[in-house]
Amino acid sequence: MSATTTAQHSEQPGRIMSGEMAEQPAVLRRILDEGAPRIRETAARIAARNPRFVLLTARGTSDNAALYAKYLLEVLLGKPCGLTSMSTTTAYGARQDLTDVLVITVSQSGGSPDLVASTEAARAAGAITLAVTNNADSALAAVSEFHIDVLAGPEKALPATKTYTAELLALYLFVEGLRGGDGSAAKALPDLARQILDRQGEIKQLAARYRFAERMVLTSRGYGYPTAKEAALKLMETSYIPALSYSGADLLHGPLAMVDNISPVIAIVTEGKGGEALQPVLERLRGRGADLVVIGAQTEVDRASAGFALPTGGVAEEVQPILEILPLQMLAYEVTIARGQDPDAPRALAKVTETR
Amino acid sequence: MSATTTAQHSEQPGRIMSGEMAEQPAVLRRILDEGAPRIRETAARIAARNPRFVLLTARGTSDNAALYAKYLLEVLLGKPCGLTSMSTTTAYGARQDLTDVLVITVSQSGGSPDLVASTEAARAAGAITLAVTNNADSALAAVSEFHIDVLAGPEKALPATKTYTAELLALYLFVEGLRGGDGSAAKALPDLARQILDRQGEIKQLAARYRFAERMVLTSRGYGYPTAKEAALKLMETSYIPALSYSGADLLHGPLAMVDNISPVIAIVTEGKGGEALQPVLERLRGRGADLVVIGAQTEVDRASAGFALPTGGVAEEVQPILEILPLQMLAYEVTIARGQDPDAPRALAKVTETR
Repeated sequence: MSATTTAQHSEQPGRIMSGEMAEQPAVLRRILDEGAPRIRETAARIAARNPRFVLLTARGTSDNAALYAKYLLEVLLGKPCGLTSMSTTTAYGARQDLTDVLVITVSQSGGSPDLVASTEAARAAGAITLAVTNNADSALAAVSEFHIDVLAGPEKALPATKTYTAELLALYLFVEGLRGGDGSAAKALPDLARQILDRQGEIKQLAARYRFAERMVLTSRGYGYPTAKEAALKLMETSYIPALSYSGADLLHGPLAMVDNISPVIAIVTEGKGGEALQPVLERLRGRGADLVVIGAQTEVDRASAGFALPTGGVAEEVQPILEILPLQMLAYEVTIARGQDPDAPRALAKVTETR
Repeated sequence: MSATTTAQHSEQPGRIMSGEMAEQPAVLRRILDEGAPRIRETAARIAARNPRFVLLTARGTSDNAALYAKYLLEVLLGKPCGLTSMSTTTAYGARQDLTDVLVITVSQSGGSPDLVASTEAARAAGAITLAVTNNADSALAAVSEFHIDVLAGPEKALPATKTYTAELLALYLFVEGLRGGDGSAAKALPDLARQILDRQGEIKQLAARYRFAERMVLTSRGYGYPTAKEAALKLMETSYIPALSYSGADLLHGPLAMVDNISPVIAIVTEGKGGEALQPVLERLRGRGADLVVIGAQTEVDRASAGFALPTGGVAEEVQPILEILPLQMLAYEVTIARGQDPDAPRALAKVTETR
């Protein structure tokens, strides 16, 4: 899709994307109020089947939501998990024995032919299949044994925002359901999301920093790592800045060579064990004089070059990613506007990918 | 480690790295001649335990080797696989039930404390543990039930080259052993590797293209995807060029917005199903007027802006990655030299990562 064809949807640059970002508190509320009972019921039915392994299948933004679910499943449930390499099924026709395996396919549209094909193959191979989509009438929902609707409403902007946070919350409630939890850690999220989204002025100021950036590095550890990946994708999709994301440990393995005072770093410092494990990386970055912007607690922001303080005091670590991504979505939006581009008209982004 | 302390090892820039790259045909030969029988025996003992699920644990370059093994295990053996999110064990203390699970930890040094800790935890949780390392005396080899020595000899250069191809070949022979194959597809590799390494002049010419590149995009599908990731890592470690890698399908999901005539693309076109699945992506890139350099068959190179023709006619698709990476290692080296930097002295690369 060319910029010309997409730009016509948008009277003001970024109007569609910013409208959908602003819906997020309401979407989170809807999932908690209307979606949660069905998610809990689906989880109970799947828990009764006692899957031993979980495979997660997705692409793009939904792949980052799948990675978040992988952390939840491993940490909270102790289930060994893997992310699917889709081409092993769709290109190589691999035939796997998926008895006792739960295959979760995450897709906003539920329409990508390769996701549908790989889910069909998984079901035929004996897997319990669950689709997590924003379209209950999609082909993916139809071919899966179970379906969770993330209830985000139609998403028109090409860079996905509200479907990402909706997928995260739906997946959190699903994993809570699997372990018989009540999901109460999520109750405060809609209000906190609203508080964050109201601080657009701070993000505008932060965006000025990246007006002429030629690259960016994003890092985190643990639950915040999917946030780093999703933020990098969002920045690239909208502003075209090459944004590289690494787990803190991987960053020390080599790519740190790229980090110096011309390669700005954004660190997502989740409050809890992930943030603690990131401390040696933050120290190393400060020692190198890196331009370090922190998304995290005020105390962490105070030790960085700049940042955005999250109101996450008392919020369970495992749901913080649902808030952490919000300032970074806003940052991608504001950096793009500051560079004179239109976040609603990325040059080459199609909403449903039709690769097989 | 600063550039000053590492540079002293190298009288000529890149001497250590280029020396180790040149050893690769001999290392591959050594694995086939001396290593293969023990690898086959280890594989037979593990096959007798009939693991149902495989988890792969690694960081950096070895993580790309682990991803290659994931494709082999899924396509050739039909085993569901996952790459470990190490922090779930080391930071969050997740306790998983790993009965019937084979955990393969890949590490050049075998010395990273987090890999040792996560392998110990996996063994305590009931997993069959296999270490694949270049150091039979390492802590990792000691804590694992099984060990495969990749026999690459001491690696002194900070950017890993010969240990990567050695890990790939050892993992290939291991998977062949699991399925009772003879690994004969690997026999031609040492000679073909030598032929490729002799073509340094071609790579020098290709390197001139990236003298002033501010970013690079690498893409592939299937077996070639780990090559794209490893090439991106190598380019970043040595030249500091932000190099982004995507599976062809993921590239179409968004990051394609970054690809135009100022973002050069390198595509690894494996001869076989992976290369076939990449065709729509190549067409799209050509249609956008991208600067497309192909590593693959001569016919594919002829349709691109430039490239490096691999002598892979008749070579089984699953072992082509062991050859594909060679011109890309050489490219990382030559681009770095062309930019007046020293491939032996990356600014921030430590050989053993000590993150936990």
